[in-house]
Amino acid sequence: MIEKLLRPELQDLIAVGDFETFRDIIEDWEPADFAALVDELSEEEQLAVFRNIDTPVASAMFAHLDLAQQYELIAQLPYDNVRNILNAMPPDDRTALLEGLPEESAEKLMRMLTREERTVAETLLSYPENSVGRLMTPDFLALRPDWTVRQVLDYIRRQAKDIETLDWIYVVDDEERLIDDIRIQEFLIAPLYATVRSIMDNQYVQLSVMDDQESAIESFRKYDRTALPVVDNVGVMVGIVTVDDVLDVVEEEATEDIQKFGGQEALDEPYIDTPILQLVKKRATWLVVLFLGEMMTATAMQYFEEELARAIVLASFVPLIISSGGNSGSQAATLIIRAMALGEFRLKDWWMVMRRELFSGVVLGMILGIIGFCRIAVWHTLFDYYPQHWALLGLTVSVSLVCIVLFGTIVGSMLPFILKRLGLDPATSSAPFVATLVDVTGLVIYFTIALMILHGTLL
Amino acid sequence: MIEKLLRPELQDLIAVGDFETFRDIIEDWEPADFAALVDELSEEEQLAVFRNIDTPVASAMFAHLDLAQQYELIAQLPYDNVRNILNAMPPDDRTALLEGLPEESAEKLMRMLTREERTVAETLLSYPENSVGRLMTPDFLALRPDWTVRQVLDYIRRQAKDIETLDWIYVVDDEERLIDDIRIQEFLIAPLYATVRSIMDNQYVQLSVMDDQESAIESFRKYDRTALPVVDNVGVMVGIVTVDDVLDVVEEEATEDIQKFGGQEALDEPYIDTPILQLVKKRATWLVVLFLGEMMTATAMQYFEEELARAIVLASFVPLIISSGGNSGSQAATLIIRAMALGEFRLKDWWMVMRRELFSGVVLGMILGIIGFCRIAVWHTLFDYYPQHWALLGLTVSVSLVCIVLFGTIVGSMLPFILKRLGLDPATSSAPFVATLVDVTGLVIYFTIALMILHGTLL
Repeated sequence: MIEKLLRPELQDLIAVGDFETFRDIIEDWEPADFAALVDELSEEEQLAVFRNIDTPVASAMFAHLDLAQQYELIAQLPYDNVRNILNAMPPDDRTALLEGLPEESAEKLMRMLTREERTVAETLLSYPENSVGRLMTPDFLALRPDWTVRQVLDYIRRQAKDIETLDWIYVVDDEERLIDDIRIQEFLIAPLYATVRSIMDNQYVQLSVMDDQESAIESFRKYDRTALPVVDNVGVMVGIVTVDDVLDVVEEEATEDIQKFGGQEALDEPYIDTPILQLVKKRATWLVVLFLGEMMTATAMQYFEEELARAIVLASFVPLIISSGGNSGSQAATLIIRAMALGEFRLKDWWMVMRRELFSGVVLGMILGIIGFCRIAVWHTLFDYYPQHWALLGLTVSVSLVCIVLFGTIVGSMLPFILKRLGLDPATSSAPFVATLVDVTGLVIYFTIALMILHGTLL
Repeated sequence: MIEKLLRPELQDLIAVGDFETFRDIIEDWEPADFAALVDELSEEEQLAVFRNIDTPVASAMFAHLDLAQQYELIAQLPYDNVRNILNAMPPDDRTALLEGLPEESAEKLMRMLTREERTVAETLLSYPENSVGRLMTPDFLALRPDWTVRQVLDYIRRQAKDIETLDWIYVVDDEERLIDDIRIQEFLIAPLYATVRSIMDNQYVQLSVMDDQESAIESFRKYDRTALPVVDNVGVMVGIVTVDDVLDVVEEEATEDIQKFGGQEALDEPYIDTPILQLVKKRATWLVVLFLGEMMTATAMQYFEEELARAIVLASFVPLIISSGGNSGSQAATLIIRAMALGEFRLKDWWMVMRRELFSGVVLGMILGIIGFCRIAVWHTLFDYYPQHWALLGLTVSVSLVCIVLFGTIVGSMLPFILKRLGLDPATSSAPFVATLVDVTGLVIYFTIALMILHGTLL
């Protein structure tokens, strides 16, 4: 909030070039608040600010800007500013910046780093995309078991400045392998002459650097930690992941799933920041795929054209019937996709899910079937609609609803399993995708049932 | 993982009643791992375990079980066990347990608490549902500005045992009002005789106890903290919220939004733990509402029955055309709902969104319109379909597609704004809900355009 109150005043200071007062005012601000201010400034004002503040303040603030903003500034700031900021940025935020750039641009920025920072950046980028390694920071405290508490406290005093969280402190052996995690409380309570070994319980939680970020989320959810240590394939501790970064990943993944579920490719940036043509492109692809799939409904309808011509009344229930299948399928698909994303069940649980969905599908289909029959009965009685064979027509619609709702439920719930089994993202079985599958088959089911029930009467 | 490896052995120990060895083995386990083990045991084994472990271990482990499991155990454990666990549980986890119970059962459990713990529990439950107050724990460290660093470290040593995170330590004035937050590093680095006041920068971030949990998520996202202090309406510090609880809220809210987006009420429990009848009920309500809405398509179709009878070919494009409107509406709705949930824009931004969506809608509609026209042209050429006036028919389908896709996009993107303006949850404008709205109107649009273009030829 503070940035909104003081913005006019700070803009005046920028305009007259009084950066001494400007620095005094923002000195004790949270980097996030300062970033929120900068985000609202004009391009010229932003550049003026960066040219006139100290590197530590600039880099802490820069790390809080969103990626689109960071890329814009990098393109416009003088070489020296960019170099200083990149070298002082927290390594995990720098990874996020570099991994979003084309290789060539990333290379260019890497050459601005000192040898030491470049090694750090290269190591972090060498881990696969979406791996725990891409999320971690290599700045952490590691103790040896034979240190005394006094040595530990001295070490913390000297090293703690850049550490993101001190809640847990790690113990490594002579080969840098993780052997314990200890809460900082333990050191504050223990006598100064006690050794680390005497405090150790040899029980610890760890992440593996090559693991998928999903597994990091699961561990954080389970153990309620603010940070977790990361080890490589031989157990050597290489970094820590903090929960604030995991929070971002959780939100990003939910956003991707929701967008995919709406029947489109996930956006790379927030909706507002996505250029309009890219927005259209991300939506057009799936929309066209669905349209091509849905074209089969036209083919199916034409196949039954003769029946339609004889009993045109059948056509009027087509949207109602196929949409019910789509809706029930969409319900089932969301439930299963989300439960899968939260790790509630695995592939082998498909039969348990199938049994529940078979039951749900039949019950839901019967509810709609009864309402559908009543609709036809009431319209017949009140408005004298459907003069001939209204009961048979009602039966056709009801039976079709039961079959199609059941079919939609089964398709919606099993498709995520099939996609996952094929190594694809279950979230691809979006509401529109399920609806399209069910529409085509639904028509065939509907007309087949109509032929069976109405043969010799309406048909 | 450890709990899976040792489960058979531990089950044997339970079977023979050797709880001394059992306690030795699980002594140093993470409470979360122990909870994962208990979760896999039979009911009898669970009860035996609880009767034979110490209260601190039991309550720490109990807090890691999911709510359904907690309720089951409370119903079955002896009175003394339940009382001990409830009194020793972290206050924020206890709030989550109590708020999920009917008032009467919650009352019964409250009476088991000591006077002190009952006051804590009652205070926390007195805050509105989904408020920051329901999320916080009242255990935190608060310093006075005139203390020396030596006093601070002594205080931490004495009090730190139950504190969830020590990364940030809070300073309050004589009236307990929050006046600063300081990283623990500062105290470890400062000389022992320095006062807290000399370390203070008077800049801090805080949450308000009555605020919505959404605002807590926003603050955590912005400031990258592991914990944030909570103050009441006069600025008195009353607790802290830790990021692991916020992580749970983020996941829950995403789950709710996704489930609503699938066109159903959000489930109260995970899919697997939801009783099947409740699952059906949650789905049936919306399915019936959508069905009743979709019934209007039957009315609309009947209204145009005469036209349909004259040009039965029009019927065959009905599913294709209305589903395209539904799909584009569903895409727009997901994008907007998610962006709103992430706070990307406010109500007043509706016009900016509208302009983007108008453009997207026209472009997407034209893409589908062109494909639709080609489909008819190709089928005409190859299979001699649509012998009369195929070009006019193609034009009808194309123009309808442009109008309906545009209409779907506008409905999908504006409905979340309208719902939010009315004080309803934007996530209610689910894919099926938007599709139903668009289906009915889409039919009217389609037949009106058909009448205009085909009048005097096919119609």
